[in-house]
Amino acid sequence: MPLDTSLVRKPFKVIGTRVRRPDGIDKVTGRAKYGADAFAPGQLVGLVLRSPHAHARIKKIDTSKAEKLPGVKAVVTAADLPDLTAGDRGLRDTLENCMARTKALYDGHAVAAVAAVDMHTAKQALKLIKVDYQVLPHVTDPDEALKPNAPLLHDDIFTEGIEPKPVKPSNFIKIAEYGHGDVEAGFKEADVIIEKSYKTEQTHQGYIEPHACLASVSPDGTAELWVTTQGPFVYRNTCAALLGMDINKLRVTSSEIGGGFGGKTHVWAEPVALALSRKANRPVKVVMTRDEVFRATGPTSSASMDIKIGARKDGTVTAAFAELRYQNGAFPFTWAEFGAMTAWACYDFKNVKSVSKDVVVNRPKCAAYRAPSAPIAAFAVESTMDQVAQAIGMDPIEFRIKNAAKEGTKSSYGPVYGPIGIGPTLEAAKNHPHMKAPLGPNQGRGMACGFWFNFGGQTCVDVNVTPDGSVTVAVGTVDVGGSRASLALAVAEELGVPYDQVRVIVADTSSLGHNDMTDGSRGTFSSSMAAVDATRKAVQTLRERAAKIWEIPVDEVEWMDGHAHAVGEKHGNKAPLSVKEISAQAANTGGPIAGHSEIVADGAGVSFATHICDAEVDPETGRTTIKRYTVIQDAGKAMHPSYVEGQYQGGAAQGIGWALNEEYVYGKDGRLQNPGFLDYRIPVCSDLPMIDTQILEIPNPNHPYGVRGVGETSIVPPLGAIANAISNAAGVRLNHIPMSPPRVLKALKAKKK
Amino acid sequence: MPLDTSLVRKPFKVIGTRVRRPDGIDKVTGRAKYGADAFAPGQLVGLVLRSPHAHARIKKIDTSKAEKLPGVKAVVTAADLPDLTAGDRGLRDTLENCMARTKALYDGHAVAAVAAVDMHTAKQALKLIKVDYQVLPHVTDPDEALKPNAPLLHDDIFTEGIEPKPVKPSNFIKIAEYGHGDVEAGFKEADVIIEKSYKTEQTHQGYIEPHACLASVSPDGTAELWVTTQGPFVYRNTCAALLGMDINKLRVTSSEIGGGFGGKTHVWAEPVALALSRKANRPVKVVMTRDEVFRATGPTSSASMDIKIGARKDGTVTAAFAELRYQNGAFPFTWAEFGAMTAWACYDFKNVKSVSKDVVVNRPKCAAYRAPSAPIAAFAVESTMDQVAQAIGMDPIEFRIKNAAKEGTKSSYGPVYGPIGIGPTLEAAKNHPHMKAPLGPNQGRGMACGFWFNFGGQTCVDVNVTPDGSVTVAVGTVDVGGSRASLALAVAEELGVPYDQVRVIVADTSSLGHNDMTDGSRGTFSSSMAAVDATRKAVQTLRERAAKIWEIPVDEVEWMDGHAHAVGEKHGNKAPLSVKEISAQAANTGGPIAGHSEIVADGAGVSFATHICDAEVDPETGRTTIKRYTVIQDAGKAMHPSYVEGQYQGGAAQGIGWALNEEYVYGKDGRLQNPGFLDYRIPVCSDLPMIDTQILEIPNPNHPYGVRGVGETSIVPPLGAIANAISNAAGVRLNHIPMSPPRVLKALKAKKK
Repeated sequence: MPLDTSLVRKPFKVIGTRVRRPDGIDKVTGRAKYGADAFAPGQLVGLVLRSPHAHARIKKIDTSKAEKLPGVKAVVTAADLPDLTAGDRGLRDTLENCMARTKALYDGHAVAAVAAVDMHTAKQALKLIKVDYQVLPHVTDPDEALKPNAPLLHDDIFTEGIEPKPVKPSNFIKIAEYGHGDVEAGFKEADVIIEKSYKTEQTHQGYIEPHACLASVSPDGTAELWVTTQGPFVYRNTCAALLGMDINKLRVTSSEIGGGFGGKTHVWAEPVALALSRKANRPVKVVMTRDEVFRATGPTSSASMDIKIGARKDGTVTAAFAELRYQNGAFPFTWAEFGAMTAWACYDFKNVKSVSKDVVVNRPKCAAYRAPSAPIAAFAVESTMDQVAQAIGMDPIEFRIKNAAKEGTKSSYGPVYGPIGIGPTLEAAKNHPHMKAPLGPNQGRGMACGFWFNFGGQTCVDVNVTPDGSVTVAVGTVDVGGSRASLALAVAEELGVPYDQVRVIVADTSSLGHNDMTDGSRGTFSSSMAAVDATRKAVQTLRERAAKIWEIPVDEVEWMDGHAHAVGEKHGNKAPLSVKEISAQAANTGGPIAGHSEIVADGAGVSFATHICDAEVDPETGRTTIKRYTVIQDAGKAMHPSYVEGQYQGGAAQGIGWALNEEYVYGKDGRLQNPGFLDYRIPVCSDLPMIDTQILEIPNPNHPYGVRGVGETSIVPPLGAIANAISNAAGVRLNHIPMSPPRVLKALKAKKK
Repeated sequence: MPLDTSLVRKPFKVIGTRVRRPDGIDKVTGRAKYGADAFAPGQLVGLVLRSPHAHARIKKIDTSKAEKLPGVKAVVTAADLPDLTAGDRGLRDTLENCMARTKALYDGHAVAAVAAVDMHTAKQALKLIKVDYQVLPHVTDPDEALKPNAPLLHDDIFTEGIEPKPVKPSNFIKIAEYGHGDVEAGFKEADVIIEKSYKTEQTHQGYIEPHACLASVSPDGTAELWVTTQGPFVYRNTCAALLGMDINKLRVTSSEIGGGFGGKTHVWAEPVALALSRKANRPVKVVMTRDEVFRATGPTSSASMDIKIGARKDGTVTAAFAELRYQNGAFPFTWAEFGAMTAWACYDFKNVKSVSKDVVVNRPKCAAYRAPSAPIAAFAVESTMDQVAQAIGMDPIEFRIKNAAKEGTKSSYGPVYGPIGIGPTLEAAKNHPHMKAPLGPNQGRGMACGFWFNFGGQTCVDVNVTPDGSVTVAVGTVDVGGSRASLALAVAEELGVPYDQVRVIVADTSSLGHNDMTDGSRGTFSSSMAAVDATRKAVQTLRERAAKIWEIPVDEVEWMDGHAHAVGEKHGNKAPLSVKEISAQAANTGGPIAGHSEIVADGAGVSFATHICDAEVDPETGRTTIKRYTVIQDAGKAMHPSYVEGQYQGGAAQGIGWALNEEYVYGKDGRLQNPGFLDYRIPVCSDLPMIDTQILEIPNPNHPYGVRGVGETSIVPPLGAIANAISNAAGVRLNHIPMSPPRVLKALKAKKK
């Protein structure tokens, strides 16, 4: 049911103002409760035993000694969880990732778990579990995994998308194709063709808060789970399915979240904690170590890509082709397909094609990481775009402007665009002072574009007016980046009351209808849409109550500026009634005043950004320093500009880390060699310049305030922008991410030769 | 908005069945979380310093030494709380009861509080607080407090209900009068007049769980409170008002409750815990000791009463008069007035009058205790009724049947009765096998009647259908006696699904609209009314979604037996759609399926009971043993008969304790001498017989299922029934409750003389 957007009051009263963060003080004073802060009387410590092998058959697990250790209350293995082998593939994979059934598929794969009275006992118990492994050959690189004789992870995966369906199992999960036109014909029209290959290494979201949960299962079959998650409802539904419970028997309460970025969209230790609690008949708390987070939760794919772009000398791209091979970790998904869909989305090409190949390897199951798959593809595409511009002697920004998608463009992944912001962000970049600023020695400037779909999905919001006229708002879509402030602004805007009169909480799963995961940059978009809907219903009730108090027809009551007004000359003497005055009489006029909304938020507007980056490359060490960085992105409407800017800056910061340093380093034994923040180097403050931002507002016609998702697009351009800047700074083209000092140094040396 | 009661499906499918308790296993296995089970990282221990004097002026409080003690994080006195002296009297009294401002008004009155890192430090800190008291004369008995020269508690209380308004302050708070007809004339028509005086002593509700809460206030002005309470919303509103906060800034979560019976309807240490947390900037947990519960929370009134009944020899009561003097503890309320309203409510008397006198004394502020004030008045009335029956030579039950109120009777407190159950319970008692059972030596049988109003009030219920078709229900009216089971039954009945498909939780105050306190036996009555309303809305949505799936008009979809049915021959081939099948498609048909209800539940039906009791009095010790006990009560409709029976038994058990043993014993110093379960003797299992119950169902026409409140009426008759049984067993009439062995022995000795 689309909302009536004609009701939007412009100019806004509070939307777009930089009000105080509702979670700010709690976070800086330590009052905010994170996943590990949950507590239940009698709780046990849960620990997970993990495979030291990248690939091994589990011949036998002997838990008897561990079970006999005093203080151990439960030991679980896959035998304590349902065997979903014959059921839904996705559920089965989810469960078998949480607890290996027949094979350990990666270093860190859970094989057993214990619950004990304290950490010491639990650690001892882990040591007493004897696992008899038959070590198998392993593969961790997507290109290697595609080779005919590669070690096979699953004997029941047959490549999807190939006709006839293969009969031989393979690591090659799926092939998919997107695009339109005739690419071969297009390349024939080109004056210049650039064809390059690229690689990216696996990165982790690097959230500060490790996964943590507290599970409590009652013998009556009901259960509670307190957990740090981006989606308590999805965790609820998934855990219930994995444990064979009705959904309503499990109540999930999400904590404050210390970062997620996609990594907290899948269940990891949660089903195990529930299984331990069910067996121990006590609450069980599981808090991952950083080592476990790296080895056994979901990083993003590493990838291998071939890109080919042909253009005429006037700058018209005649054809573009990409083949994207992404590893998905040990369990099948479609991460490469996301890359294929997003690769060319910024542009309006007549002939365009992308082919995705998804591959399983002996690495942890991949998870979403902020605009998942898109930065990888954009790195390859934007690097190649710059090389084409260079080849035809055109300014890279002009080249992109000439080819940019616009309203009415049929996108490379299918849909026809409505009003979009890629052109405006490119124009803004072109006119930005950053573009004209002088560069120092060893410095170069690069730019790149980025795209993300943005999602909508199911959201529920309850608006309740309290007896003193202050308002509580409950939402089920977790706040990961400021949505509580935006929802309070939306409710305040609709009611016509100050921001401080509204307080938003994230409700547990038994207090609201189903909410989708906070992903796809859907949080503020969809929740504010539901909040507006719910508040308008509450306003309708407020009008009815005012009419009752005044004993006049409701159509003679108008809502303006936070008050009911009796309309018409005959009501001239009636003083307007405030929310407080109306709610004070609620008990006598029909009961508490509320508004509820359960929606599928359709029409999330696509989002585009253009980034500008100045990099300085130290010719002696190969170290790259980012000297200046500017993010220009379309927000549709920035409900709370500070949060939007924070999202822009955060995405750029993570992109800089990904571009320059972060990578999973696997040894020949298939084990992760750097599972910690000392060896896996995320950027710290001193690694980053001030990241400037410019918010553009091209309203999304499907949202009552014009809002688009803003959280993800900002991580898409940095890899390409930095590669282009390094190329301009040092005259070397890096085709392998991260562009760490050793790789840059190697390129510099090769260039010298 | 009254619900359409014509929609009730009869016979019921699940209403009235004895399904499994949703809270049962959790309570017996220890998983249920009570007030003291709350935990927040960094929490402090809060302790309260209490006055050792019954009445004393606080000249000075020196907290400086306590503040300097290492580990002490906050010390608060009244100076840290708002001065409400000039404001609302009720709020001011509530606050000053929580923390004395200028005078300590009873032994145990809070005068200061500390928050420290541990219990040891907190106890030390209490000792370091120096309070300079000026001890004042005190009074603890209502009759004494009414005397002209009694010590005066408040210098600003002037008796309400007297014209002209007195100018001299007094302990006599209020006089009120109820009744109709001409009592003086009526007494003149009587053949027999019995006039007696009675006293009752103060009793405590005796809940197992002491008051406990955890308060956490952020410097940003938001706060959370986890607490054992009968009314988290009322606690929220009250605490916010007392601390000067907007209501929506405080989020209250109620724990499982270990008994309340009215004692957890007022705030006690909660505002103090919040004030401590606000000052310490840390979470603060306050758990009362049993001593504190007795000395400083709200027991019921003690009372002094004069009763006069005149009757003709044929059994017609010609006039009835009562004067009821109840002490309210140290702060004014209208407990005697409740006694005056209920005293004669079972009967249809032509001339009837009751006068209430409410009095303050130096005792803890009184709170509600299960049908508050009614058992006291009923003791006096029912004792006198038996004596009148005896005097005119009529069977006590026939005498009551002759005078019983019925549909159309103008009640003694005003309203005209609809269909009521006093006559039927008396008839059922008359025909009950218990009435004809033989009695042994020293045994006697007594009976008595009881009445309670029952309340309705504001209630909010949300019904949410989860993706697998199981249902979550959130209610804000706390479950103190089984309402979760009854609500699940109501939702299952309306949806046409099994009971197990529905799970009910008590939501926190930020997740729902305002709910009134669970008191006045309103929990199941009002919440089930809202649950029915919400579920019918959800059913409407389910029908709409089925229509959408089938692409037919919604008026061609009927809801029956948990399925949508396409009605009409043209839809003959459409298989009915279950809740699960419809909800599985929710994301594609408009979003999550829900129903919401915010109501003022009008029309709570009055409730009546008749109890039969066999008592054996040991002539040597005066000890009374209850040999057999039968409760007959009208439930309107027993949604879950086991819970209803449990309420009947629980009320009788508490009444037996009150009748025989329980009493607050004050020393001459005005200090409570028995603040513990060793010296304040509540009945244990071995003190009680099996309490038989008989449920009558005279439907309440205002509820869709005919439900009446059942929780309170059962405590009203026992005092009178037992007094009458003792009289019949031992030939002595006890006019002073409790009828403890010393009092009975004294009566037996007096009779011998």
